[in-house]
Amino acid sequence: MSVLVMKFGGTSVANLDRIRRAAKRVGLEVAKGHDVIVIVSAMAGKTNELVGWVNETSPLFDAREYDAVVSSGENVTAGLMALTLQEMDIPARSWQGWQVPLKTNGAHSAARIVEIPTENITAKFAEGMKVAVVAGFQGISPEGRITTLGRGGSDTTAVAFAAAFDAVRCDIYTDVDGVYTTDPRISDKARKLDRIAFEEMLELASLGAKVLQTRSVELAMRYKVKLRVLSSFEEPSDEAGTLVCDEEEIMELNAVSGVAYSRDEAKMTLTGVEDRPGIAAAIFGPLADAGVNVDMIVQNISDEGFTDMTFSCPTDQVLRAEKAMQDAQAKGDISYEALVADKNVAKVSVVGIGMRSHAGVAAKMFKALKDENINIKVITTSEIKISVLIDRKYMELAVQALHDAFELEKGA
Amino acid sequence: MSVLVMKFGGTSVANLDRIRRAAKRVGLEVAKGHDVIVIVSAMAGKTNELVGWVNETSPLFDAREYDAVVSSGENVTAGLMALTLQEMDIPARSWQGWQVPLKTNGAHSAARIVEIPTENITAKFAEGMKVAVVAGFQGISPEGRITTLGRGGSDTTAVAFAAAFDAVRCDIYTDVDGVYTTDPRISDKARKLDRIAFEEMLELASLGAKVLQTRSVELAMRYKVKLRVLSSFEEPSDEAGTLVCDEEEIMELNAVSGVAYSRDEAKMTLTGVEDRPGIAAAIFGPLADAGVNVDMIVQNISDEGFTDMTFSCPTDQVLRAEKAMQDAQAKGDISYEALVADKNVAKVSVVGIGMRSHAGVAAKMFKALKDENINIKVITTSEIKISVLIDRKYMELAVQALHDAFELEKGA
Repeated sequence: MSVLVMKFGGTSVANLDRIRRAAKRVGLEVAKGHDVIVIVSAMAGKTNELVGWVNETSPLFDAREYDAVVSSGENVTAGLMALTLQEMDIPARSWQGWQVPLKTNGAHSAARIVEIPTENITAKFAEGMKVAVVAGFQGISPEGRITTLGRGGSDTTAVAFAAAFDAVRCDIYTDVDGVYTTDPRISDKARKLDRIAFEEMLELASLGAKVLQTRSVELAMRYKVKLRVLSSFEEPSDEAGTLVCDEEEIMELNAVSGVAYSRDEAKMTLTGVEDRPGIAAAIFGPLADAGVNVDMIVQNISDEGFTDMTFSCPTDQVLRAEKAMQDAQAKGDISYEALVADKNVAKVSVVGIGMRSHAGVAAKMFKALKDENINIKVITTSEIKISVLIDRKYMELAVQALHDAFELEKGA
Repeated sequence: MSVLVMKFGGTSVANLDRIRRAAKRVGLEVAKGHDVIVIVSAMAGKTNELVGWVNETSPLFDAREYDAVVSSGENVTAGLMALTLQEMDIPARSWQGWQVPLKTNGAHSAARIVEIPTENITAKFAEGMKVAVVAGFQGISPEGRITTLGRGGSDTTAVAFAAAFDAVRCDIYTDVDGVYTTDPRISDKARKLDRIAFEEMLELASLGAKVLQTRSVELAMRYKVKLRVLSSFEEPSDEAGTLVCDEEEIMELNAVSGVAYSRDEAKMTLTGVEDRPGIAAAIFGPLADAGVNVDMIVQNISDEGFTDMTFSCPTDQVLRAEKAMQDAQAKGDISYEALVADKNVAKVSVVGIGMRSHAGVAAKMFKALKDENINIKVITTSEIKISVLIDRKYMELAVQALHDAFELEKGA
């Protein structure tokens, strides 16, 4: 028997009408002969309301109680979905995380899944149940208390169930109809991708953050779970959405699959840094300790024993970075002339698994930016991504120019 | 160590402010040296919202899913209450029904409590925890599914915990400040009772229905749990509220403790019924099968082999009763001339454990009604209650006259 996992996000189960609409999609898959595991989020807005109450009650809350409170929204949707399916004469029942049981570690509010025993649900499928509705986002700790997997955790629940039940596919229903070559709000040439490789999806996190929780993509990659992202507001079709899959399942790899961006970047430059062995560790150690997420790092050529060190970090961590550097200088661990923060920058990246086998991607990228007279401040590369830091005012222009240069409006 | 159980109803935890106010009361009891078990309801209105969703989704709902959905409100309040107590530096944690575990039978939506193991909570008290906050109204079935105890079930949860933990008292915080000699909206002479016996409380259900779930009183009586009903909106005091207790704890029993009433009564008369052995069973069997709650029954003296049979039932069951009688006649089980329904009646009762040892209560009641020219249609008596059916328009007058006649405005 083939198991299909279907996950419905908060907007897809926001009210009874939408739950009915989602249930109809489940019915279509049951009619195809699948045993279906449905993972549901809380109704849109409910989890935010609960989180708000917890924060107002106790700003430094006990995460165990946080989990007990905020997990309740999913329980409501799970029961209502099971009832809706039953009304459609589809045998269904709900499971809360502890009933499965979805076993996690004890890291409350950010728990990691340890194990999903399949016996209970498999036994019910064998008895004729067609749909197991499972409350997403939640599990049970070794101490028997409720845990949650972090915001967006229902995606991870869905992928973990797909892995545990060796599902044919994991369909993530959300309010966007797939993954695009870039943000359609920035380029009207943005094209929905039919397929994207796991690694690309992870690198496109800045595009994809609202589509899938990053952890769920990592998990899908590790267990080779076919993930499909699609909208619950579109007509059902086999071609709907974007399939996130192993690169081997993508026939023709483009050099570049998408153009991502991030506005939320600051460029920090330490000038007049003494250039000696260990200086990088002396700088980035304290930054890491202070919780600064350093992204790009560039070290200029040394001049008479002194150098400039440039790095980027999220704009809201600039103050924290400055304090960390001042403290390190005060302690005598490092010495520098000045720390210059430039908050008017943005990061633009091209991402594509195909660039591993296509030469000249970087050159083409830099030429496209030069043709628009966009100055590049910092460059970093990985195996499947090239990122540049540029003036923020050119960000949209750069995204459009790169989308054009790599002809992303054309399909494979 | 002495355990105190405190139960807060929906209006007492309706928002974060009220939860804080309730937590302060808990803090006062902790300061007195009690280990406290707090039972919480859902925030006012939440359970109704959830029940509404279930009914809209599935009018003939699967009670197991109903329970999974409607139990979620209490989980939210339990976590928030634990967090509030922690903010006050009172060691506390929440328990959901299945975590205790509060074991019930499998009668979903109306489950009966089977067992409350005390080990888990007792162990935490021994470790220094001062307050166990338990989500009311819910338990776990032998199959490991969530059950609920029926509306108002948190009262029963509280009493059951008080019995299991041999608590010194079970305080039920609600939005009324106790049990009155009659409804203060009907008689401005109504007086709050300091103490009332369990049996009286049960008979005063029509007064007490909004104060305590009847089952909780039965349970308290069986296990001799001292129950106190008090308002969470009044200043704390040792004399607050009404103590519902064993009659032996009430020094001086009044002949009559209170005057109860019910507007929701209909008087049904079957005329020309053949008077033969077994006729009562032939009439009331089908009524019971049809789910009609027959209260009072009067059979007139037989006249030439025929009699009139009068009974009362809730007004909204009149149609059901009529159909049951027609069906029974059609099947030849009974024969009668007519079934006359009088919906313009009300029931007024005087209740008092003391009437067992005081003669003349009935005579005094009938005289008081006669003095007001109120005609009595039906009379029934139990050991501690006398009830009459009268024209509904005289109901308020009758309540006031009886309250005066038995001088209930005066304390013991």
